[in-house]
Amino acid sequence: MDKIRIAVVGLGSRGAWWLGELLKMEDVDVTAICDRLPHRLEAAQELCRKTYGREVFATLNHKEAIVRDDNDAVLMLGSWNDHISVAIEAMRSGKYAASEVGPGQSLQQCWDLVRARQETGMPFMMLENCCYNREEMAVLNMVKKGLFGEVIHCGGGYRHDLREHISSFEDDRERCYHNLHRNAELYPTHELGPIMTWLSVNRGNRMLTLTATASKSRGFNTMNRKKGRQELPYTEGDVVTTVIKCAGGETIELTHDISLPHPYSRLGLLEGTEGIWLADKHSVYFDGISPEEKWEDIETYYEKYDHPLWKKTNATDFTSGHGGMDWLVMRAFLESVKNRTETPLDVYDAAAMMAVSVLSEESISMGSMPMAIPDFTEGRWVRREPAPKSIYSLAEVDESVYE
Amino acid sequence: MDKIRIAVVGLGSRGAWWLGELLKMEDVDVTAICDRLPHRLEAAQELCRKTYGREVFATLNHKEAIVRDDNDAVLMLGSWNDHISVAIEAMRSGKYAASEVGPGQSLQQCWDLVRARQETGMPFMMLENCCYNREEMAVLNMVKKGLFGEVIHCGGGYRHDLREHISSFEDDRERCYHNLHRNAELYPTHELGPIMTWLSVNRGNRMLTLTATASKSRGFNTMNRKKGRQELPYTEGDVVTTVIKCAGGETIELTHDISLPHPYSRLGLLEGTEGIWLADKHSVYFDGISPEEKWEDIETYYEKYDHPLWKKTNATDFTSGHGGMDWLVMRAFLESVKNRTETPLDVYDAAAMMAVSVLSEESISMGSMPMAIPDFTEGRWVRREPAPKSIYSLAEVDESVYE
Repeated sequence: MDKIRIAVVGLGSRGAWWLGELLKMEDVDVTAICDRLPHRLEAAQELCRKTYGREVFATLNHKEAIVRDDNDAVLMLGSWNDHISVAIEAMRSGKYAASEVGPGQSLQQCWDLVRARQETGMPFMMLENCCYNREEMAVLNMVKKGLFGEVIHCGGGYRHDLREHISSFEDDRERCYHNLHRNAELYPTHELGPIMTWLSVNRGNRMLTLTATASKSRGFNTMNRKKGRQELPYTEGDVVTTVIKCAGGETIELTHDISLPHPYSRLGLLEGTEGIWLADKHSVYFDGISPEEKWEDIETYYEKYDHPLWKKTNATDFTSGHGGMDWLVMRAFLESVKNRTETPLDVYDAAAMMAVSVLSEESISMGSMPMAIPDFTEGRWVRREPAPKSIYSLAEVDESVYE
Repeated sequence: MDKIRIAVVGLGSRGAWWLGELLKMEDVDVTAICDRLPHRLEAAQELCRKTYGREVFATLNHKEAIVRDDNDAVLMLGSWNDHISVAIEAMRSGKYAASEVGPGQSLQQCWDLVRARQETGMPFMMLENCCYNREEMAVLNMVKKGLFGEVIHCGGGYRHDLREHISSFEDDRERCYHNLHRNAELYPTHELGPIMTWLSVNRGNRMLTLTATASKSRGFNTMNRKKGRQELPYTEGDVVTTVIKCAGGETIELTHDISLPHPYSRLGLLEGTEGIWLADKHSVYFDGISPEEKWEDIETYYEKYDHPLWKKTNATDFTSGHGGMDWLVMRAFLESVKNRTETPLDVYDAAAMMAVSVLSEESISMGSMPMAIPDFTEGRWVRREPAPKSIYSLAEVDESVYE
C-alpha cells in the first residue's frame, strides 16, 4: 500500500483539527471530506487545497464519502449519536472504520457494531487517545511486568470543568443536549480504556456487572446564573459514580464530573497486591521497595519502565494533540489499515465501553440497580486469539517488536 | 457535678490507652474497670493504683461495672460484637453510654440502640474521633460558611495497610475474625462520620440507599505467604466500594481498603457548586478565588477558616491521640455527661453509620443490589430539635459559644 487513503466524516472543532493532522502525514492521502454544514466543509476544502494543491472530494452527504472505492478507511468524527451508524455503513462498504470517543446510545447499537465487524471482516477502532498517554502506558508496562502484583482495583474519572463549554447551547450543542436529557456515565472511555488494558478485559477477563449513582444537578445552572444566561433543565447529575465488577474479581470505579469547579484530573488509580499508582499524586508506592508510607514520583521509574512505544517514538516531542497521545492513537489505527491487521482497541473493546454508558443510565434510572454487562465476545474472551504483534499493541508489551 | 464518674469496659490496647488518658483528666473519676482477661485487668488496676493511690473497683463481669450507682457514664471499648449490647445495658441502668467505633452487626441492633435511648432518656455516643480532626473540622467550618456553595458529592475511605496487624490471629483477633467471615464496608465511620456532619445527615438530610461492591480477596494471604504464616480463607474483599444516595440529592462514596500496600489516607473529598477539597492533596480549590486550575494548600485558609474549637483548645499541643482528635472526641462526650445534654454525635448518627456496614454486607452478598437505609429518626430528620449549644457541636458552628 502506497498511501493510506482516508475519508473524514465530521469536521467540527475536533474533526477539523484531526484533518489538519492527517494532512501533515506523508503516508496518508485524504480522499474525501464530509460535513453537514457547508461553511465547515468549505473551510476544510480550503485547507486540503493549500496542502495538496488540488481539490479533494467534498460532500454534505456522508454516504457519498464512504462508498467511493478510493478509500481504505473512514474516520467518523461527528456527533456522538451518529458514530456507530456511520461506522457500520463504512464497514459494510468494505472500509476500516474508526470513530472519536463517545457514549453508547443503546445496547443494540453495540451489538450491531460487533455483527458488522464479524460479517464484513472489517475492523473498527474507537480512537481512545488516553490509552496511549505516557503515564497510562507506563502503568500498563509496570502491570505487565508484575510490579503491582495481582491487580485488584482500578479507578478513573473525567473530572473536567466543562461549565463554560456545555452549560449553554451557544457552545457545544452536542454535549449540551446529552447533558440536558440523559443521566448517565456519559464519557467513560478516557479512564475506562486504559483500565481495560491493565485488566486484560476481553482477553482473559471481562466486565460482568455495574451499578451507577448520580448526584443532583446544580453545577451548570449555577454557572448560567453567574453568567446571566438562561437556566436549563439539566438531567445529568453533577457527579455520576459507577462501580464495575469484573470476572477476574477486580473492581473498577468511574467518576463523571464535568459541571463543578475543579482542576482537571482523570483520577487514575491502580491497586495490586504489591503496589499502588495514584495519578493525582503522579506517584507510585511498591511494597518493600518504596520507603515506608512514602509516595514516589512515577517519573523516577520511567528510566526503567517507560513504555517502549514512548521510548521509541519520542512522542514527548509532539507539541500538539494532548501531549502526543492523539498522534499515537491515530498512528495505531493507520498502521492497522496499512498492514490489514486487527486494531489494538477492537470492536469488542468499543462495544464494552459504550455499553457502560447505556447501562449506567439504566442503573441510575432504576435506583442504582445492578445491571449485567453483555459479553460481546460471546465467550471468546476466555481464550482469545492473540493480538497482532505491533508497536501499538495494548494487549502485550513485546520488547522484540521495538528493535 | 464535681467529677465525671466513669466505668471503663474493655481494656485491650485501645481501652488501656484510653484509661491512661482518662486518669490524666482532673475532672474525671474512673470508678470501675472491667475486662474479661485477668492479666489485662490487673495491669489496669496497677495503673489506677499509681495514679489515684487507692484501689478502683475491678471486675471480669461488665454487668458489675455497669450497675454501680457511683457511675455517671460507661465507656465500651471492647469487642466490636459487644459494643451495642453493653451500651444498651448501661443506658438501661441509667448511665450515659459511649463506645469506640465499629461496624454494625444487624439492623435490629441499631434499632434496639435507638429504642434504648428513647425509653431510658440516656444518650449514646459513638466516639468517632475523625469528626474532630483539624482538617475535617476546617472543612465543616467552610461548608457552614458557604465556601463550597451547595454540597454535591463527598468521598472518603479507610486506606490503611493493616496486613501486619490483621492477616493473622496472632495480632488483632477481633478484626481478623471479622475479615475472615464477613464481606462488607467494615469500618466506615472515620470518613462517614465527618461526611455526615458536612451533609447535615439526620438534621434536614438523611442517607436513603446504598450499593456496595467488593473486589476479590488477595492481600492478606499475599502477606501471609511472604511471612511464612498460614494462609486463611478470608472473605473480605481487598477493596470494598460503597455508594450512598442522600435525600438532599448528594452522593457519598466510601472505600474500605486495608489489605493492600499503600500509604495511609482517609481519601477525603468534598465537592460543591463553588469549590472542592481533596485530602490526598491537603488542598482546596474555589471557583473564581483560586488561580485557574491550581490547587491551594488548605492551611493557607486556616487563619480565616480553622474551626473555632481548634483555635480555642489549641488541640495541636496534644501530643498523643492521633494529633488531638482523640482528646477532643472524649471531651465532647464528657462535657455532655457533665451538662446532662445530648451528645454531639447522637444515637441516630451511630445507628445510621452502623447500618451502612450491615447493608453493605447485604448488598455485596446480593450482587450489589441497592439497599434502603432505615430512617432511624422516624421522620424527625425533616425538622429536628436544635442541637445543644456546645463548643463541641458538629451541627452548627456558633462563634458565640467560644467567647
